[in-house]
Amino acid sequence: MSLWQALFSPRAIALIGASGDAAKNSARPLRLLRKHGYSGRIVPINASRGEVLGERAYASLTDAPGEIDHAFVMTPSESVERALEDCGARGIPVVTVLSDGFADAGAQGAARQERLAASARSLGVRLLGPNSMGLVDIPGRVVLSANAVLEMDALLAGTTSVVSQSGTMLGTVLSRGAARGLGFSKLVSVGNEADIGVAELVELLAEDSATQVILLFLETVRDSTRLARAARKSHAAGKPVVAYKLGRSRLGEAMARSHTGALAGADAAVDAYFRDCGILRVDWLETLFEIPPLLAGRAPPDLARAPRVAVVTTTGGGAASVVDRMGVLGIETLAPVEPLRARLAALGARSLDSPIIDLTMAATDKQYAAVLDVLLDTPACDAVLAVVGSSALFHPQLAVEPILRSKRGAKPLAVFLTPHAERSLALLAERDIAAFRTPESCADALASFFAWRAPRTLPERMEDASPPVWPGELPRRGKLDEAQALALFSALGVPSVESAVARAPRYEHGIAYPVAAKILSPDIEHKTEAGAVALGIAGSSEYDARVRTLLSSVAESRPEARIEGILVQRMEFGLAEAIVGYRHDPVVGPLVLVGAGGRLAELYQDYALRLAPVSEEEAAAMIETVKGLATLRGYRGLPRGDIPALARTLAALSRLALVTGQPVAEAEINPLIVKREGVVAVDGLVVMKE
Amino acid sequence: MSLWQALFSPRAIALIGASGDAAKNSARPLRLLRKHGYSGRIVPINASRGEVLGERAYASLTDAPGEIDHAFVMTPSESVERALEDCGARGIPVVTVLSDGFADAGAQGAARQERLAASARSLGVRLLGPNSMGLVDIPGRVVLSANAVLEMDALLAGTTSVVSQSGTMLGTVLSRGAARGLGFSKLVSVGNEADIGVAELVELLAEDSATQVILLFLETVRDSTRLARAARKSHAAGKPVVAYKLGRSRLGEAMARSHTGALAGADAAVDAYFRDCGILRVDWLETLFEIPPLLAGRAPPDLARAPRVAVVTTTGGGAASVVDRMGVLGIETLAPVEPLRARLAALGARSLDSPIIDLTMAATDKQYAAVLDVLLDTPACDAVLAVVGSSALFHPQLAVEPILRSKRGAKPLAVFLTPHAERSLALLAERDIAAFRTPESCADALASFFAWRAPRTLPERMEDASPPVWPGELPRRGKLDEAQALALFSALGVPSVESAVARAPRYEHGIAYPVAAKILSPDIEHKTEAGAVALGIAGSSEYDARVRTLLSSVAESRPEARIEGILVQRMEFGLAEAIVGYRHDPVVGPLVLVGAGGRLAELYQDYALRLAPVSEEEAAAMIETVKGLATLRGYRGLPRGDIPALARTLAALSRLALVTGQPVAEAEINPLIVKREGVVAVDGLVVMKE
Repeated sequence: MSLWQALFSPRAIALIGASGDAAKNSARPLRLLRKHGYSGRIVPINASRGEVLGERAYASLTDAPGEIDHAFVMTPSESVERALEDCGARGIPVVTVLSDGFADAGAQGAARQERLAASARSLGVRLLGPNSMGLVDIPGRVVLSANAVLEMDALLAGTTSVVSQSGTMLGTVLSRGAARGLGFSKLVSVGNEADIGVAELVELLAEDSATQVILLFLETVRDSTRLARAARKSHAAGKPVVAYKLGRSRLGEAMARSHTGALAGADAAVDAYFRDCGILRVDWLETLFEIPPLLAGRAPPDLARAPRVAVVTTTGGGAASVVDRMGVLGIETLAPVEPLRARLAALGARSLDSPIIDLTMAATDKQYAAVLDVLLDTPACDAVLAVVGSSALFHPQLAVEPILRSKRGAKPLAVFLTPHAERSLALLAERDIAAFRTPESCADALASFFAWRAPRTLPERMEDASPPVWPGELPRRGKLDEAQALALFSALGVPSVESAVARAPRYEHGIAYPVAAKILSPDIEHKTEAGAVALGIAGSSEYDARVRTLLSSVAESRPEARIEGILVQRMEFGLAEAIVGYRHDPVVGPLVLVGAGGRLAELYQDYALRLAPVSEEEAAAMIETVKGLATLRGYRGLPRGDIPALARTLAALSRLALVTGQPVAEAEINPLIVKREGVVAVDGLVVMKE
Repeated sequence: MSLWQALFSPRAIALIGASGDAAKNSARPLRLLRKHGYSGRIVPINASRGEVLGERAYASLTDAPGEIDHAFVMTPSESVERALEDCGARGIPVVTVLSDGFADAGAQGAARQERLAASARSLGVRLLGPNSMGLVDIPGRVVLSANAVLEMDALLAGTTSVVSQSGTMLGTVLSRGAARGLGFSKLVSVGNEADIGVAELVELLAEDSATQVILLFLETVRDSTRLARAARKSHAAGKPVVAYKLGRSRLGEAMARSHTGALAGADAAVDAYFRDCGILRVDWLETLFEIPPLLAGRAPPDLARAPRVAVVTTTGGGAASVVDRMGVLGIETLAPVEPLRARLAALGARSLDSPIIDLTMAATDKQYAAVLDVLLDTPACDAVLAVVGSSALFHPQLAVEPILRSKRGAKPLAVFLTPHAERSLALLAERDIAAFRTPESCADALASFFAWRAPRTLPERMEDASPPVWPGELPRRGKLDEAQALALFSALGVPSVESAVARAPRYEHGIAYPVAAKILSPDIEHKTEAGAVALGIAGSSEYDARVRTLLSSVAESRPEARIEGILVQRMEFGLAEAIVGYRHDPVVGPLVLVGAGGRLAELYQDYALRLAPVSEEEAAAMIETVKGLATLRGYRGLPRGDIPALARTLAALSRLALVTGQPVAEAEINPLIVKREGVVAVDGLVVMKE
């Protein structure tokens, strides 16, 4: 029996801890299985009753007859392990555990969960949960859950499947979807993911002929490598994966050691990761289940310019509420220019000076249909937004039906209805037309669609690239001092400032003036703030004086710091400063970052982040998105900086991900001086993994 | 007869252009008046029928008997003027015009509208529209509109009134509200506002005993002075005014002459204006009609620190979707510390290490009620968020009813239900408890609530302040050159750089080196970009050489520019540069702005904007919100800058609003050098009104 069958098509299900008291949560799974037409055998296990809600019950699994494919455990947390052992003894292949009190409940619970997982492994039992709300297969009529929303009378079948780290969300998407005619295929609550996790379920759903789009509700990512593989598999199968992930607000909550660490907070890393493996991320909860018809059967758009959307409406204000939000998200609204303008004018469309084609409440169904078909047909736009005003509630024939009958092709069509018009939403859902309840989720969906990229084919890239060799003289543990860090950057091919280490007692050096002098110490990371840097030293007598000042000020501010000497560097001048960073994120792995130098990247959270390594082309695309680097792009007539050299540097640093064993925890060039021609690294930080 | 009575309590209504064909939009108003129980007399005017939908009709207004208080005009745009004249002849005090084809339809339509408005004035007729969808008074049973949504069977009465520049939105808020039990009092579509506008309606509603909260759907602000007065009146009457305004995306669409002009785009100016007159702005469309119960009977919170919200829930994931969004919006979630923690623990609440108090699906109604009451009672938080998971759909007794019974006081309570649970939403609405359909609108409402400020009492401030005197030697028209601009800033009390104008042919000056030299020309605004600035000149021979270079480069790049001399300034060094600007916005009037200098304010849209003038205290609060000025606030251990001096400068520049006649269109100090002690203006721009 495959995992698939035991999960979604079990011939018999044991309900361990099923209550006979209909008011209790543990009575619900039996009732729901029956209510929604489960055709297999139900085996309630209840120590004190011979009958549960009309079903023959057994005191223990041992007493229960016949083969059982799936057990659902609802007993108190202390007795779950025992129940699992019973399941193992009976050869039940899959056990779903509703009970909480495991990793969700402190250290003691976490230990209990580890024992449970180990026990499952040794028994050969696959485990969903603990703390799982169960699973639902609507077309297959398997509703194995304690979620109270499932008491709704009819569950609407569809081709969208859901994997959720929150059990509540099963009911949330089901009920909200049902109210507007959106159906689902499979819904699974993974709970604490002690065994079967999000990634494995995505793998299964990628192979499921009844699933077209996979939705994820995530609080965290527990197995990023496997999920990335699963997402690639799903993409290859033509099934988009969409995620709503919590954690937007935790960005940058704690200052890490380096700027890179502080910047590339957990959420930004997850963004880079999703992008890398082709997972769309939506920002609004309702977008998650409204977006599937916009994606089903489509490939990532991969536009090289800002997306353009054409808009037809019967209400200017209603359409503007979406268009305004789209504008904030960087989506342009198509201004009807010739020859499109003439075609629209011939159909009686007025006010064509506005990008919103407002047919007003005076529109006829024929006119709406004709304009919509012209927009779906024109090569001038990348998607069409159809908005319908008050008529959508009681007069769908006016504009909703023309949308239903429209000549749809490859171009995405999004619909927003201004009134509360559930019947019209259901008509649209029935025809697989993406319709949105709010202007915000409509704009969010279009923005997510246009940001969607095919997964990067990482494994091939890694083969092509010859891995950089770790310079023999550099340590592979601890921190590198600044001179060592610059040596590493040079070895990677990054031009570094001409520099020398001047030693006590005389601190002599051979660098031509003007120079900068910095205390060389593995214990001082932010040198400027520590008063450990002197810039623009014009000659040797000034050098002597300022080195003395540096030493005495550091002796006072950081008496514990080990001083290895003075790092003397040629003063470098350029057009702008950049920060280029590398970090091994504990969740998603190696990342590379570029931002504007100084404090800009940090103050404004203005940087681009991708999974490492990146090609020079990808690096150039990253640089393009950093606002603060506009000063290198000819902004306001300023001279242009050497962006290709910056991109080469970014690609070079990102290749730390290819060093055998990935020994680097963090590396940062800050600042990298960008000149009209060339770049030069003048300061850096490298921290090895513990 | 008052305007109020004629608008909302007309004893007889003429429907001019009422159609007898029930399928037509112009047949709808008669049907709707009857359907919703209008008790007055209906007088259809139809040139070709003696009867319209069972009602006696008249060929013209002249033929119609009796007194008529209100006329609703639906004829083609060309004949509206004639209809208005007929109304004037009959002494009808208020005419609502549904017909479009006026300012909504190009220059010709705008001219037609001007004629219509002039005609109304001379006839003594008040005009709502043209292009108005009409108005609704639900408690008064007057439904005078062509909005198709109004064909719904029952309109729910409430104490929230709506004024909208979009006619569709009447149906949008009514139908969406009705689906969750939210009722309304009056709804008015103002159309093109040729006469009666948003401001006058707010005045009327502020006096309306049936209205508690006033909602505005705005595309633009047409009479900012009167609306500000009306908002203050409404605030004084204890009636919050809430606006959803389009235009977020148009921010900074075109580069204006100065940085200030470019930065303080229309939308940012409107934000400053709303804040000034106490209007709350919501970001999400549904928040507009969901927020009233959160506001009704409450005063602006005016917290001096980040707001703290306590959260109780039966679902961790559902609560986190709101909490995450709140975090993005700067709202903290209360971590239960002692003695609160002990009180909650005594109630059986677990996982108190998380700020979300998750009672899980195992919660009992008693427990939920007890925890909620503890949170509503504790002084440790500023608001309470109650989240209910799947039970909200079929088992409201579990957590929804405890919310209904909770001991509510002054503290705001917001509720989010995760499933589609309209009945529970209606139960909450019935008890005037703010409940939200989406996590995003819930967070948006709380953020708007906490950002709410009482209107500033401008008139008093203006009296206190002695207006600055315009320096006699400065022109009052055109542009000031840089030397004149600095002289104006000095006159306002802003320390300006020591400077002198050096004239041809020898360009001599008496400023001590090092100096900066700039081409003095009224025709060059962005001098750095034009190559018209030389910095860091160490001595006189370097001065001579660099002045020659400046002159020749400007002769080449700007041959048309008038050169008045060379402005020589002492070089100034400080901790940071700021931009301080003043602008007379065409919509909202005088504004003052502060941002980080260089290109930061522009690149990152990082600035604070308020209506001018501001006090030093307000100026200091503005500075606090500018991210880029963190470098003056001791960021990362950097030395602190003289923020009080910066605030004095901001307040001083803002006093340009008090100069008689407000002659200045734009003024900008950029940069203002901020030192450890003091500030100094080193460059500036002043443009007078045309």
